[in-house]
Amino acid sequence: SRSINLAVIPGDGIGQEVVTEGLKVLSAVLPQDVKLETQEYDFGARRYHATGETLTDADLDALKRHDAILLGAIGDPSVPSGVLERGFLLKLRFAFDHHVNLRPSKLLPGVATPLAGQPEIDFVVVREGTEGPYTGNGGTIRKGTPHEVATEVSVNTAFGVERVVRDAFARAQARPRKKLTLVHKNNVLAFAGHLWTDTFNRVAEEFPEVTTEYIHVDAATIYLVTQPERFDVIVTDNLFGDIITDLAAAVSGGIGVAASGNINPSGAYPSMFEPVHGSAPDIAGQGKADPTATVLSVALLLRHLGHDAEATRIEDAVSADLAERTGGPARSTAEIGDALAVRVAG
Amino acid sequence: SRSINLAVIPGDGIGQEVVTEGLKVLSAVLPQDVKLETQEYDFGARRYHATGETLTDADLDALKRHDAILLGAIGDPSVPSGVLERGFLLKLRFAFDHHVNLRPSKLLPGVATPLAGQPEIDFVVVREGTEGPYTGNGGTIRKGTPHEVATEVSVNTAFGVERVVRDAFARAQARPRKKLTLVHKNNVLAFAGHLWTDTFNRVAEEFPEVTTEYIHVDAATIYLVTQPERFDVIVTDNLFGDIITDLAAAVSGGIGVAASGNINPSGAYPSMFEPVHGSAPDIAGQGKADPTATVLSVALLLRHLGHDAEATRIEDAVSADLAERTGGPARSTAEIGDALAVRVAG
Ligand SMILES: CC(C)[C@H](C(=O)O)[C@@H](O)C(=O)O
Ligand SMILES: CC(C)[C@H](C(=O)O)[C@@H](O)C(=O)O
Repeated sequence: SRSINLAVIPGDGIGQEVVTEGLKVLSAVLPQDVKLETQEYDFGARRYHATGETLTDADLDALKRHDAILLGAIGDPSVPSGVLERGFLLKLRFAFDHHVNLRPSKLLPGVATPLAGQPEIDFVVVREGTEGPYTGNGGTIRKGTPHEVATEVSVNTAFGVERVVRDAFARAQARPRKKLTLVHKNNVLAFAGHLWTDTFNRVAEEFPEVTTEYIHVDAATIYLVTQPERFDVIVTDNLFGDIITDLAAAVSGGIGVAASGNINPSGAYPSMFEPVHGSAPDIAGQGKADPTATVLSVALLLRHLGHDAEATRIEDAVSADLAERTGGPARSTAEIGDALAVRVAG
Repeated sequence: SRSINLAVIPGDGIGQEVVTEGLKVLSAVLPQDVKLETQEYDFGARRYHATGETLTDADLDALKRHDAILLGAIGDPSVPSGVLERGFLLKLRFAFDHHVNLRPSKLLPGVATPLAGQPEIDFVVVREGTEGPYTGNGGTIRKGTPHEVATEVSVNTAFGVERVVRDAFARAQARPRKKLTLVHKNNVLAFAGHLWTDTFNRVAEEFPEVTTEYIHVDAATIYLVTQPERFDVIVTDNLFGDIITDLAAAVSGGIGVAASGNINPSGAYPSMFEPVHGSAPDIAGQGKADPTATVLSVALLLRHLGHDAEATRIEDAVSADLAERTGGPARSTAEIGDALAVRVAG
């Protein structure tokens, strides 16, 4: 479409700084005839302290009117653990049915990895975003007593599993290697494991060109550090996806460059794009944060909205920038953003 | 005690080969006056195919009479996924209340790691072994239909969490660095997370010398590859422990050297010791398996039974052997066992 009506949520800590650069690069890459409108929303710790609110029905109504959402980071040590995570981040994922949590991992030339021997890393994790152990089901009895029992219920539905498995197959089909790995723990979590494995095998029949494999989540962490090149597309449950995508980010250049999309492929609600990193309050306001992950999240956003050429321009600019960074002097958040804006415009 | 009555379960695949070497080293290290009795049990795929049984009440009665259990590996592609895992391995852990699943990770000199720069790695994971998502609670409705719902229930009790947290604090207290890290996901799994965090903080007051920290499981996987030296003792839930100990094994020399103990500290039931690796049917019977992980599991077994000096002799022998391996010709399973037996006896 020839206009983008974007909701911008800078959030906490370094969120504002990285989002500023993300928007700078977005403006620079868009052709003249694509109209960009942005509206900023003040969610996060400040608003929580001021009003006690994290995300109201009115907020959701307002956000719903945008084409997409760009988020910096949410979270601050002044807020009890879990309040903003569940009250804002997860609430938004569930309210807007962001069932495809897309997290690409690509080790770009010149980027440092903790792994020896600079392996080839280029895969995408499709993490389910609206089910599994993330639903808040469960409870506590006899809280605070020696007889307390606390449960967490992982909820998995045929509807929820099939739609994300299907999305992952389609993504695998569209990539040169056409390989899809299901990561689960079906030898122990047999109820959910059966549903995931069965669905995976059934949908696989519709994608005869896609090579499939199954790997237990514990073994997957081994392969991510010893043979990351074996992965092309991975589909997995919400919690396993949370865990392996942090590891994937660590081995493919760190969370400074890891982008993510919380996607509703139907378009019924706007999708949200954000760096994998958190709000990093320790370095906030110092111009030290690397905006690359946010800029790459903008690329995911553009591709989601159908602006593929612009998404590719951003990704190419980031690759070129990272390749040149090696050994160079440390640059500020704004300097990196400026350099990327120049590259995508040029 | 001056005698050890050991149950030996070679199991499937390479299990027999590695257990033979483990017993070789055990016999070599024990002083003359410690009487070693062993009894072999034929659990695993062969027995399952012959009788349909994995672990009967009579089996449990027989195993109960031993001081400890040494296991090679259980699992074979001819048996449907989950049958032996749940029918034997998990059944035994639950029946014998093996609530402390001990998994040390130490990167020994000369051992290859997938991480760059040969970091310092020397920590122990205390994984809860009898609760969490491993209890088999949950179920399926409308199986095989488009309306299937499958649940997995993580069960966490004050009793179960406190005893393992206490065990971990005692282990941290006994180590030079005296540091304990709780790994969980308390910002999302708030019911279980609250019980774990609360219990951890309460027990911490009894161990003022122990430095404590909390890390989310997703972030823990990042630290395991970027700063593994930050860990001393980790205590965590059954599933998180499963996942991070495979990653820990991978970064600290691979599953060829990763040992584990399924421990019942009360002694009410015998504890079980086993290499972290599986039955590796692809290399079974070829004398290619590395018995080191089994030999190190024998060291854990000896320490558990109070034979500390002998446990240390084995660990030192393994260190010396690994340091000399670098660049040497590949040795067979038996050759490695022979070399270690000579070292511990010498
Ligand atoms: C902050 C937290 C709720 C979130 C998650 O667990 O999904 C984060 O770790 C992520 O991966 O986006
Ligand atoms: C085989 C399986 C049941 C087991 C587990 O999940 O505990 C294994 O992965 C382990 O870590 O011992």
